[in-house]
Amino acid sequence: MSPVRGWFHPKTATGAASLVPAPPWRYSGDLLTVEYRTDPARVRELLPEPLEPAAEDPGAVALIWADWQSCADGGAELLDPVRAQYKETFAVVRCSYRGRTYSRCVYIWVDKDFAIARGLHQGYPKKLGSIHLTRPHPYGPAPCVEAGARFGATLAAADRRLAEVVATLREPSAGGGFVNGHPMLHHRWLPSIEKGKGLALDELIESGAASFEGGPPWAADAELTLFEAPTEELARLRVDEPIGAYYRQVGVVWDGGRLLESGTSGAR
Amino acid sequence: MSPVRGWFHPKTATGAASLVPAPPWRYSGDLLTVEYRTDPARVRELLPEPLEPAAEDPGAVALIWADWQSCADGGAELLDPVRAQYKETFAVVRCSYRGRTYSRCVYIWVDKDFAIARGLHQGYPKKLGSIHLTRPHPYGPAPCVEAGARFGATLAAADRRLAEVVATLREPSAGGGFVNGHPMLHHRWLPSIEKGKGLALDELIESGAASFEGGPPWAADAELTLFEAPTEELARLRVDEPIGAYYRQVGVVWDGGRLLESGTSGAR
Amino acid sequence: MSPVRGWFHPKTATGAASLVPAPPWRYSGDLLTVEYRTDPARVRELLPEPLEPAAEDPGAVALIWADWQSCADGGAELLDPVRAQYKETFAVVRCSYRGRTYSRCVYIWVDKDFAIARGLHQGYPKKLGSIHLTRPHPYGPAPCVEAGARFGATLAAADRRLAEVVATLREPSAGGGFVNGHPMLHHRWLPSIEKGKGLALDELIESGAASFEGGPPWAADAELTLFEAPTEELARLRVDEPIGAYYRQVGVVWDGGRLLESGTSGAR
Amino acid sequence: MSPVRGWFHPKTATGAASLVPAPPWRYSGDLLTVEYRTDPARVRELLPEPLEPAAEDPGAVALIWADWQSCADGGAELLDPVRAQYKETFAVVRCSYRGRTYSRCVYIWVDKDFAIARGLHQGYPKKLGSIHLTRPHPYGPAPCVEAGARFGATLAAADRRLAEVVATLREPSAGGGFVNGHPMLHHRWLPSIEKGKGLALDELIESGAASFEGGPPWAADAELTLFEAPTEELARLRVDEPIGAYYRQVGVVWDGGRLLESGTSGAR
Repeated sequence: MSPVRGWFHPKTATGAASLVPAPPWRYSGDLLTVEYRTDPARVRELLPEPLEPAAEDPGAVALIWADWQSCADGGAELLDPVRAQYKETFAVVRCSYRGRTYSRCVYIWVDKDFAIARGLHQGYPKKLGSIHLTRPHPYGPAPCVEAGARFGATLAAADRRLAEVVATLREPSAGGGFVNGHPMLHHRWLPSIEKGKGLALDELIESGAASFEGGPPWAADAELTLFEAPTEELARLRVDEPIGAYYRQVGVVWDGGRLLESGTSGAR
Repeated sequence: MSPVRGWFHPKTATGAASLVPAPPWRYSGDLLTVEYRTDPARVRELLPEPLEPAAEDPGAVALIWADWQSCADGGAELLDPVRAQYKETFAVVRCSYRGRTYSRCVYIWVDKDFAIARGLHQGYPKKLGSIHLTRPHPYGPAPCVEAGARFGATLAAADRRLAEVVATLREPSAGGGFVNGHPMLHHRWLPSIEKGKGLALDELIESGAASFEGGPPWAADAELTLFEAPTEELARLRVDEPIGAYYRQVGVVWDGGRLLESGTSGAR
Repeated sequence: MSPVRGWFHPKTATGAASLVPAPPWRYSGDLLTVEYRTDPARVRELLPEPLEPAAEDPGAVALIWADWQSCADGGAELLDPVRAQYKETFAVVRCSYRGRTYSRCVYIWVDKDFAIARGLHQGYPKKLGSIHLTRPHPYGPAPCVEAGARFGATLAAADRRLAEVVATLREPSAGGGFVNGHPMLHHRWLPSIEKGKGLALDELIESGAASFEGGPPWAADAELTLFEAPTEELARLRVDEPIGAYYRQVGVVWDGGRLLESGTSGAR
Repeated sequence: MSPVRGWFHPKTATGAASLVPAPPWRYSGDLLTVEYRTDPARVRELLPEPLEPAAEDPGAVALIWADWQSCADGGAELLDPVRAQYKETFAVVRCSYRGRTYSRCVYIWVDKDFAIARGLHQGYPKKLGSIHLTRPHPYGPAPCVEAGARFGATLAAADRRLAEVVATLREPSAGGGFVNGHPMLHHRWLPSIEKGKGLALDELIESGAASFEGGPPWAADAELTLFEAPTEELARLRVDEPIGAYYRQVGVVWDGGRLLESGTSGAR
C-alpha cells in the first residue's frame, strides 16, 4: 500500500483530485464592510465558554460582502477561473479570550465548494448562498471608487433573500472598520460518528492573514436590511444603530493558524 | 380595458414586471477577444441569402468573452446586482450585404434571462451557458492589465465545456480586433404558431453601439481550444490559424437599430 | 448560399445547434395546481383589448407548479436529461374572446433555456426562476399520492422567494381545476428594432394540447403565500379566497396553435 | 455564557441555523448503479493502510447516480423541497479490513450544501457537481420501469462533463449489485490548523443504513463513458469490462456509525 495523497479529500495516489491544495492560499478581492450595533445579548449568545464579549462595544457586528479570486501556489486556478472565483457574505463579531480581543465569524455563505473546504479548515461555518456585489468599473454606468458612488450587495440562501445593502461612498478613510480587524478566533467542530458521544473534533484555533496589502479604504453610508428565514438566524443580529461602512480592494495570503485548546468546548 | 404596459413580457397594468425595461441599455464590461481563421466555407454556410462572405479574410472569426454590468435608464439594476451582472461568450464573423461589410454574431451564450430577452430584440441567438473570465485586480495574485499578465476564460453549456482560452497580454495595441468592429447584421426569426407556415417574424436588421468608450486595448497571445458537443456547432469553426487576441475594458450604450428587410429570408 | 437550417436560433448549415427542435414536443410531468379568487380588477388589468374577463368567476387564478421531462421527436433529450428536465411555476387566469372562454398564462418562471425558447413560440411570458416541488415516492419519507400526503412547492427569482405553498391531499377528484382547463389565448409580442415604432410582432394566438393523458387528479387543501418583489407583480394577484388545489401526473403533447389576429393589440 | 447549540455549524443559541439537524436522516430516492471492472492496481492505490483490496474481484467499481429527497426527524425539509432534494454521483470500491469486506466511496459529487455537511460527518469525500438522471414517469415520453426502458445520467463538475451513461432495463433482478452492498469503511480526515503538523482528525469509521426498504431491482445494460479533467481522477478508474447495471427505488435511514481506529492513517 502506498499512502494516499492530497491535502484535502478525496485523497488519491497522486493528490490531484484534492478539493483544495495545501496553503498558502492567495486572494484578490473587493470588500464591502457594513458595521452596526445590535443588542449585545445577541452577540453574547453566540460565544461559547470560555469566550467572553469584547470589553468595549460588545454589540458591534460587521456584515461583509467579498468578491474573490483565489488560488494556491502556482496559481493554476486563475487560468481556469471557475476554480478561482467565488463570492461570500459573512457576519463577524468580536470576543475576548485570555484577555485578548479577537474577531469571530458567526455566519458565512459562499458560492463554491472549494471555499467551503477552506472554511472547514479555518473554522468558518460556511453554507452555500447566492451573493452579488456591484463591481467598480472605469467605463459605462457601473460606479468608480469615488465620492457619491453607490454599490449594492445582496445575499440569498435556499431561495430566500437574507440581506441587502446599498452603500454610498463618502471619502477616503483612515481605516476599514474595527470589527473584523483582530485575529480570528474560531472553533473547529465535528460530531462523533457514534451517536451520543459528543464531538470528535473540538478545537479552538486562531488564525489571521500571513500577509496583506490593500488600496485606500473608502468610508460609506449604508442602508442594510436583514430578512427572516426559517433556517437562518442572521436577522437575530438586528440592526439597532449603524456604525459605518467601508469599501476596499485587497490582496491577502492565508497560511495556517494556531491551536489554542482542544476538547474543552461547551458546544453540544 | 386599459392597455397593458411594459417594454417586454410579461406586460401588465404598471409595466413593472417587464423582463427588461426599454432601451437605451448601458453596459460596463471587460472583453477578451480571440481572433482566428477557420475554413471560409464554415463561415459561408452560416450566412443566409442575401448575405455574402466578406471580401477580405472571409474565414476570420472572433470568439469574445465579456463580463458585464448593465442597466436601463435610472440604473436601479446596479444596486441589486443580481439584475445587472452577467457574462457571455459569443462568436462573431463578418459578412457583406449590399456592398457593405457587417459583423454578425452566429453563436452566443449568456447566464441571465434579461440578457436572453435583450438578445431576442437585437437578433443575438442566445442560449444559456456558464461563462468565466479572469478579472484584473490591483492586489494579490490576480493579474493586472500589464505585459505578461495571463487571463483564462471558459464556456460551458448543458454541462459540457465548449471552449477555453489562456491569453497572455503583450503590449498596448492600436486596436481591439477587426472582426467585431462593424455594425451588426442580424436576423430576428420566430416560427409561425401554425405548423408548416414558415416564419412569423423574419427580419434582417442592423444595429450598433449608440455610444462607446474604452480603455486602451492590449494585444495578447492566446491559446484557444474548442470542444465538440451534440447540440452545439461552435467547434465546426475550427481554429486553423490564430490572428490575435485583445483585452479591453469598455463602456457601451445600445439604443435601437434599423430594419433592413422583412420576410425575405431563405431560412427554413 | 445554402439556406440555414434549424427550427429555432441559432440557425446553421445542419440545424443541430437549434435551441429547440421543431414541435411536436412531448412532456411527462407532475402538476400541483392551486386555485383561488383575487380581486377581479387585478385580473382585468392584465387583459389587453379585445380580451374581456370571463363571464363567471372573473377573479379566479390558478398558480401551477410543474416538474417536467420533455423532448421532441426521437426523444434524445431524455437520455441526456440536463436537456429534458425542467421545472416551472405559472399563473393562469381566464378571459373571454369572441364569446369563448380561454385560459391565459400571465406570469411564468422556468429553469432552462430550451423552455424559454418554447415559451417564446407559444406566447408564455417566461422568466428564469428557481422552482422546487416535492415529488411522490413509494419508499422512505417522501409522500405517496394518498390521502393526508403533504407536498410543498416554492418559487424564487432574482434571489427572492415569490411564492410558497403546502398542499395536503384529501381524496381523488373528478377534475383537476377549471382555470387552466381551456385553450390558451396568448399574445406573441416583440418590439420593433427601431425606437418608437411599436411592435414588430403582435399576434393573438390560441393553442392547446394535441394530446393528453393523466392519472386521477387528487383534491388537496393548500396554504399559499405570495411575496412582494421589486420587479415582479405576482403578489398583486392577492389570495382573497381559496378555491381548491389538485395534484396530478400527466403526459402531454404540444404541436402548434392557430393565429387569431395580428397587429391589433393595444399593447404599448 | 450559555452553551451554543446545533448539531452542525453554525452553532447558535437556538440551534435553528445548523446546516443539518442531527441524525437520523431519512431518504427517498432513485438509484442507477453501473458496475464494471478496472485495473485492480487503480483501486488498490486508493486504499490507505491498513486497508487491503477485496480478496475477490478487487478491480470491481460501482458508479452510482442517486436522485434523493431527504430530511431529519419531523420532515420539515420535505415541505420546503429546496432543502430536501439533491442529486449525487459516487464511485464505490470494495476493500478488506481485519478480514472483513467493506464498501468504500472514493469519489462523490452532490449539488447541495446540506449533503456536503452530511458527507463530512459520514466520511464521504464530497465535491459539488451537476448531476442529472432520467426519472421514471407513468405518462408521456419518460420511461416507465419496464423492460426496454432507457435511462440516461450525467455528471459534471467545474463546468466539465465527467461521466455519462445510458442504461436499458432488461428484467427484474434478484439483487442490485455487490460493490456497494457492504458496510461503508471511510476515513474522516481534517488537516491540523498548524502547518506541518499532519492531521487533526484522522478516523477510520464504519457505518451503514439503519434501515432500508426498496422496490424490485431491475437489471440493465449500460454504456458508461468517463472523461478526463485536470482536477478529477475518476477517469483513472477506466472501464475495462462491464459487470452489470441496476435501477432501483429505495428508502433509507442513516443513524450513525462506529469508530474503528483513530490517528493511525498513513495519509499525508
